[in-house]
Amino acid sequence: MGGAGFTLGQLAAILKGTVDGDAARVVTGVASLEAAGPQHVAFVADGRYRQAALASRAGAFLAADDVHDLPAPVIRCREPRLTLIELLHLFHPPASVVPGVDASARVAADARVHPTATVGALAVVGAGAVIGAHAHLHPLVYVGPGAEIGEESVLHPHVVVREGVRVGRRVIVHAGAVLGADGFGYTWDGSAHRKIPQVGSVVIEDDVELGANTTIDRGTLGPTIVRRGVKIDNLVMVAHNVEIGEDTGRGVVLGGQVGIGDHVTVGDGAMLSSQSGVVSDVPAGVKLAGTYGRPLMEFQRIWVTEAQLPDMLRRLRALERRLEELTKGE
Amino acid sequence: MGGAGFTLGQLAAILKGTVDGDAARVVTGVASLEAAGPQHVAFVADGRYRQAALASRAGAFLAADDVHDLPAPVIRCREPRLTLIELLHLFHPPASVVPGVDASARVAADARVHPTATVGALAVVGAGAVIGAHAHLHPLVYVGPGAEIGEESVLHPHVVVREGVRVGRRVIVHAGAVLGADGFGYTWDGSAHRKIPQVGSVVIEDDVELGANTTIDRGTLGPTIVRRGVKIDNLVMVAHNVEIGEDTGRGVVLGGQVGIGDHVTVGDGAMLSSQSGVVSDVPAGVKLAGTYGRPLMEFQRIWVTEAQLPDMLRRLRALERRLEELTKGE
Amino acid sequence: MGGAGFTLGQLAAILKGTVDGDAARVVTGVASLEAAGPQHVAFVADGRYRQAALASRAGAFLAADDVHDLPAPVIRCREPRLTLIELLHLFHPPASVVPGVDASARVAADARVHPTATVGALAVVGAGAVIGAHAHLHPLVYVGPGAEIGEESVLHPHVVVREGVRVGRRVIVHAGAVLGADGFGYTWDGSAHRKIPQVGSVVIEDDVELGANTTIDRGTLGPTIVRRGVKIDNLVMVAHNVEIGEDTGRGVVLGGQVGIGDHVTVGDGAMLSSQSGVVSDVPAGVKLAGTYGRPLMEFQRIWVTEAQLPDMLRRLRALERRLEELTKGE
Repeated sequence: MGGAGFTLGQLAAILKGTVDGDAARVVTGVASLEAAGPQHVAFVADGRYRQAALASRAGAFLAADDVHDLPAPVIRCREPRLTLIELLHLFHPPASVVPGVDASARVAADARVHPTATVGALAVVGAGAVIGAHAHLHPLVYVGPGAEIGEESVLHPHVVVREGVRVGRRVIVHAGAVLGADGFGYTWDGSAHRKIPQVGSVVIEDDVELGANTTIDRGTLGPTIVRRGVKIDNLVMVAHNVEIGEDTGRGVVLGGQVGIGDHVTVGDGAMLSSQSGVVSDVPAGVKLAGTYGRPLMEFQRIWVTEAQLPDMLRRLRALERRLEELTKGE
Repeated sequence: MGGAGFTLGQLAAILKGTVDGDAARVVTGVASLEAAGPQHVAFVADGRYRQAALASRAGAFLAADDVHDLPAPVIRCREPRLTLIELLHLFHPPASVVPGVDASARVAADARVHPTATVGALAVVGAGAVIGAHAHLHPLVYVGPGAEIGEESVLHPHVVVREGVRVGRRVIVHAGAVLGADGFGYTWDGSAHRKIPQVGSVVIEDDVELGANTTIDRGTLGPTIVRRGVKIDNLVMVAHNVEIGEDTGRGVVLGGQVGIGDHVTVGDGAMLSSQSGVVSDVPAGVKLAGTYGRPLMEFQRIWVTEAQLPDMLRRLRALERRLEELTKGE
Repeated sequence: MGGAGFTLGQLAAILKGTVDGDAARVVTGVASLEAAGPQHVAFVADGRYRQAALASRAGAFLAADDVHDLPAPVIRCREPRLTLIELLHLFHPPASVVPGVDASARVAADARVHPTATVGALAVVGAGAVIGAHAHLHPLVYVGPGAEIGEESVLHPHVVVREGVRVGRRVIVHAGAVLGADGFGYTWDGSAHRKIPQVGSVVIEDDVELGANTTIDRGTLGPTIVRRGVKIDNLVMVAHNVEIGEDTGRGVVLGGQVGIGDHVTVGDGAMLSSQSGVVSDVPAGVKLAGTYGRPLMEFQRIWVTEAQLPDMLRRLRALERRLEELTKGE
């Protein structure tokens, strides 16, 4: 991992920080405290990692201000967590992408693919679709008729964007995600479930990231909306007519395997723990967990108490018996 | 949305209904009560939506009989929910599909594709597979050797139908669904988990709909069966040797992210809430929710009471102490 | 199902067993006790299936030693469960695979595909990727730049193996699984969630099986690791920086729709029930279920008691009232 090296002094200059210790030391990559060797910088997020840092063989550290007396030189920065991101980009620059449409891709004659966009091998772009500047469709991606992919967005292999779906700018969609499958809606006609046509669409705003094999269904009449900055993990299901995030800037975070029921609005900045499911509106800024989404703290308190539930039942019976005897004795 | 317009009189004639109000008014599409403008028909399912209808800017309504005094003309029909389906088809006729096999698809020489079927770009059809009349395989679909796809069925992009799987007529399979992956079966040989070959298949009967990224595993010896009319949402897992629905007509409904354990039979007309999981047979007609599938009402009662669980423990302790003191005092 | 037939005597010889009854009887396939006809062998795992065996029309049985007086000849073997596997392979030999790269596949010029490997139609193999001897990439598989697929491994249709991921030998990856999507990691910069580059990888060791549409995320700095012999069902999510199994041989088993949170280590031989989720380390050899992974027995005890929770609350209130009265009366 990593390629050419940097001296700690060079790194500090790029990262707008300073070096405690030997600024001439050369490092060639970033590694975890456990895996790092003398050629690596390792990250010490805060004091809780001090012991691990003392045991680390790392050649240098990027450390928070409150972590001292480390066994190797330290790069100090104002915002070490944000600096870590810069450091990783430095050692792992994004692979260079050749713009253009691969000869094996199938792009409809009237689709508009920006000349700086990349359409990978065996990708399919439907009639009237629009692919923005510097957008990157990996191999085997499907973009349906009339769909739009914004500037600098990345669709990983096997992503499906169905007809008419609009994806904003700088959106990352991970492999196997499906945007715009029909919402799940039927009417019972007395002898069968009749399918309600789902003629709405999906709108994914700018700076959203969607996890692998996640599904976002199209709305019945209007769009299912994922607002700016929302981050969604893998295998999440967002049903039809949902609106996630209110575009005030904070961004919703949905953990893995979360389910969002139909017609639900998830308020800005809300966080849903992995495997939670919600079927009614979620207020802005809350942290929810579990079935029907309880406040995370309440959920955890219940979870802890549940372990005593069989014992509680036993004790309840014992109390009932004792009280019975007591009353009888009177 | 919408294309050419209709007068309300024309709509009423097509939908076999009547108009309360100006039958000459022209509308060009259907929209939700909130999003509708003067060019839209909006749907008022029942009296609960009356307030929203009064606030709506819709140019016309399709409304249930018991909703009166609306602020725009109303189309009245015997079955407004079923009429909504017709109305949506009217304004959103299915995209015309050109029959035939795309030049970039890979169809085995001995596969039988009906001349009225459509095989999209970069789809793969294996040896001996059979694709029925008017079936539609979207781009990048995989149909394995010996598999059969019935008349008028639609496989969305990236669907995988593995070897020998049989899909009935008018079945809709959403993007990324996998039919016929190996069931999960092993035997411990003393040093390793030995895989039990899964040589059964999957049978999907007529009029089934399967959600995006859902997986239906093949049986160990015989088929995993999804009976006629069953509707399954996204990211559902159906294990091997399962049978869903008993073909008496009502159709099972499985919500998103549901899991059906191996060898389970789900009775006709049963409904499983999103994220529920069942590992034993489900009687016909019941509504279940949660782990091991409880009756929905019981599940919700438990859920509500759980919130008091930490408090119940506190009160139980208090009772024990008070009774202790009481007894001591004797 | 099945092709040419075998006499029971021939089967017993191949399987190193004996025949109780007519060794000249010919069978042509294996079927379940319920579905078997006179041409089938059916399997009787243990005495619990004796009644079903008595009612079966099977022409022969493969049965455990303790099951007697069956209505047809019986093949007896030392290890009937392991023999069943052999029997299934006998009647269902793996389809013959033609080695070589399909003309429609897109293989980078500098990728190394072993001459005995198979690369199916419309598969994509990226720059510098390595495909081992007898490996089988089904149609529409994606293997990214620098990824490695070991000998005899099988990737089913639509599997995505992203750049740099290493898959061991004899690994089976079912359709739609995604290996190496970015882990879910962000840092809040005061106005937005900033993505932490995920520059680690995924390592899948030998003899692992991964279910359909399962996702295994790449690590932040180092690899996410799935150790030798681990078996993972469908729609499972393994987050970044996870390590599953400790390579001591037993192999972890993860049921369907399980979620493994980030930085979790799952000990060797652990089993996680379907839909369970863990966010902290799992000791070797345990069986866990549910949210945060409880011991399976405890989980089931809680589940049973929960059904009485509304009643417990009622009884608790009654006790409080009675004790109140009792004390008042003093």
